[in-house]
Amino acid sequence: MKVAVLGATGLVGGRMLECLERSSLPVDQVLPLGSERSRGRAVIFRGEELEVLPVEERHFEGVSLALFSAGSGPSKAWAPVAASKGAVVVDNSSAWRMDPQVPLVVPEINAADLAWHRGIVANPNCATIQALMVLYPLHRRYGLCYFSAVTYQSVSGTGRGAVEELKGASAAYLAGQPWESSVYPRDIAFNLLPHIGSFDDQGISEEEWKMVRESRKILGMPHLKVSSATVRVPTFNCHGEAISASFEEKPDPREAREILAGFKGVEVMDDPKGAVYPTPHDGAGRGEVLVGRIRPDTGLENGLAMWVVADNLLKGAALNAVQIGEALFSGGARV
Amino acid sequence: MKVAVLGATGLVGGRMLECLERSSLPVDQVLPLGSERSRGRAVIFRGEELEVLPVEERHFEGVSLALFSAGSGPSKAWAPVAASKGAVVVDNSSAWRMDPQVPLVVPEINAADLAWHRGIVANPNCATIQALMVLYPLHRRYGLCYFSAVTYQSVSGTGRGAVEELKGASAAYLAGQPWESSVYPRDIAFNLLPHIGSFDDQGISEEEWKMVRESRKILGMPHLKVSSATVRVPTFNCHGEAISASFEEKPDPREAREILAGFKGVEVMDDPKGAVYPTPHDGAGRGEVLVGRIRPDTGLENGLAMWVVADNLLKGAALNAVQIGEALFSGGARV
Repeated sequence: MKVAVLGATGLVGGRMLECLERSSLPVDQVLPLGSERSRGRAVIFRGEELEVLPVEERHFEGVSLALFSAGSGPSKAWAPVAASKGAVVVDNSSAWRMDPQVPLVVPEINAADLAWHRGIVANPNCATIQALMVLYPLHRRYGLCYFSAVTYQSVSGTGRGAVEELKGASAAYLAGQPWESSVYPRDIAFNLLPHIGSFDDQGISEEEWKMVRESRKILGMPHLKVSSATVRVPTFNCHGEAISASFEEKPDPREAREILAGFKGVEVMDDPKGAVYPTPHDGAGRGEVLVGRIRPDTGLENGLAMWVVADNLLKGAALNAVQIGEALFSGGARV
Repeated sequence: MKVAVLGATGLVGGRMLECLERSSLPVDQVLPLGSERSRGRAVIFRGEELEVLPVEERHFEGVSLALFSAGSGPSKAWAPVAASKGAVVVDNSSAWRMDPQVPLVVPEINAADLAWHRGIVANPNCATIQALMVLYPLHRRYGLCYFSAVTYQSVSGTGRGAVEELKGASAAYLAGQPWESSVYPRDIAFNLLPHIGSFDDQGISEEEWKMVRESRKILGMPHLKVSSATVRVPTFNCHGEAISASFEEKPDPREAREILAGFKGVEVMDDPKGAVYPTPHDGAGRGEVLVGRIRPDTGLENGLAMWVVADNLLKGAALNAVQIGEALFSGGARV
């Protein structure tokens, strides 16, 4: 099969190529696509250098799967084009996520929603994916009523420029030198910015709304109560999240640990007295969502609290997109 | 008046001396005390070098106010001694906080509790103080039912060694060099450790219990529901906290902003579209608790969400202790 990757030179695009290499998809050809700015650049797939082509309608001829990670603008413009050519688009931007005609999928949770796609499938927001990966298996057992997700998000979610800014700003800070921020509105070095995406008139951020709205859609629970605060922290890769949830039935932390350990794609690291809990350094490069600090919540009825870490470029983005591709094509692919 | 400072060479002890210099207390003499290890060291007060003396019973003769910041062990041993000599001890450790005979005081909230002290007053935990400084004025207006405080705590709360560890580990990380952690159980550089204090058998940390229990005592609400997750982050100074609260009456964010702006010791920084919100860089060296991102909580009934930053060495520790001293002695002092 032929797979197109739009945004192939970005951080997520690069991870998409790596995940494709390791995937069960019978990939014969990869077509890296980009904007005009990417013309002349190359990416590596299976050890081969592939030229990045500026995106054009004709490139989608014969493409079965098109992985998009080029931002909302290009997604809005090109996803319908690729779909009209017969490709299934898995889009990592927020452009299509809340469209009622577009399934929003975490394969371990709602692969069944892929049945009603019309050529476009949306990949959820990174922070939402890792929250739901641990909440969903517990929901099946205890019945989720409410959750709060407070995030500690790394700069890799913003892109390459942000990674360079954290490096440069941190080195400058340690050397007592001034630094002019250009990617973030405030200094990110050894600092905390409660600011991800733009703000609505009530002061709620886009990223906070994504947690609320995408969770409801993925779980098929349109009235689920969700609180969220999203904060950028000075880490390079992997988001951390403090999650508190309230259930219909009282969860037993020991059983919850077993349920989570048995859920595909989740790994439990939970021996806090031995300093065993997930940190961003543990999660980087890992495809699993790591969970620890599983404990009774001291304030919520039938409450459980947890600490969750995942590589926001992998399960939070590229890996989930490729897994959607596998769910879509594995039937045919495995014959 | 004569003021003793136990733990004068520590980070908080140093801030106590600075706060005493700026306070309204009629300080005639400061007596810096420490452990045997501090013998021969000196601190600066009002430009003068003062020798640190190893703590002994006789040093508390004639002392009116004794500020303690030397950890729980020395506090347990020496607070009753100092009190028996007629000093009022304001203790920054956790040793006495939950003792029913010891008031636990944030002066803006429960200075009235100072009336029943028996020679020892406890200074609350840093993270608890800044949460309550914003919750209490809202509680008076709307009636607090529940709150969740998820923290982003700087390394200065751990002490000087932790500040050096964050510097060294960060520089090593940026240079691609190895680093052996000695203060923290895991690498703190560009990482997140959901681990503050020891853990109980349920996996709840001491710091999380402090938020629950100290809040109840300070507010005089023994059944208040409190959720907490406490996390160490790679910032040098000032704690950040994402707070969600539920009230009896529906809070109006605009009115809440006014209430907070009018509460002594709190400063509102809240124009997120203009990137105006408190960050640790804004709070360092400031005595005020900074609050922003005041918004409706998307998941809680009658809910309000906020982002709070305060200097954990000042309002979170030294300043609050000196303010307790002022509340105790200002009557006499101001005559």
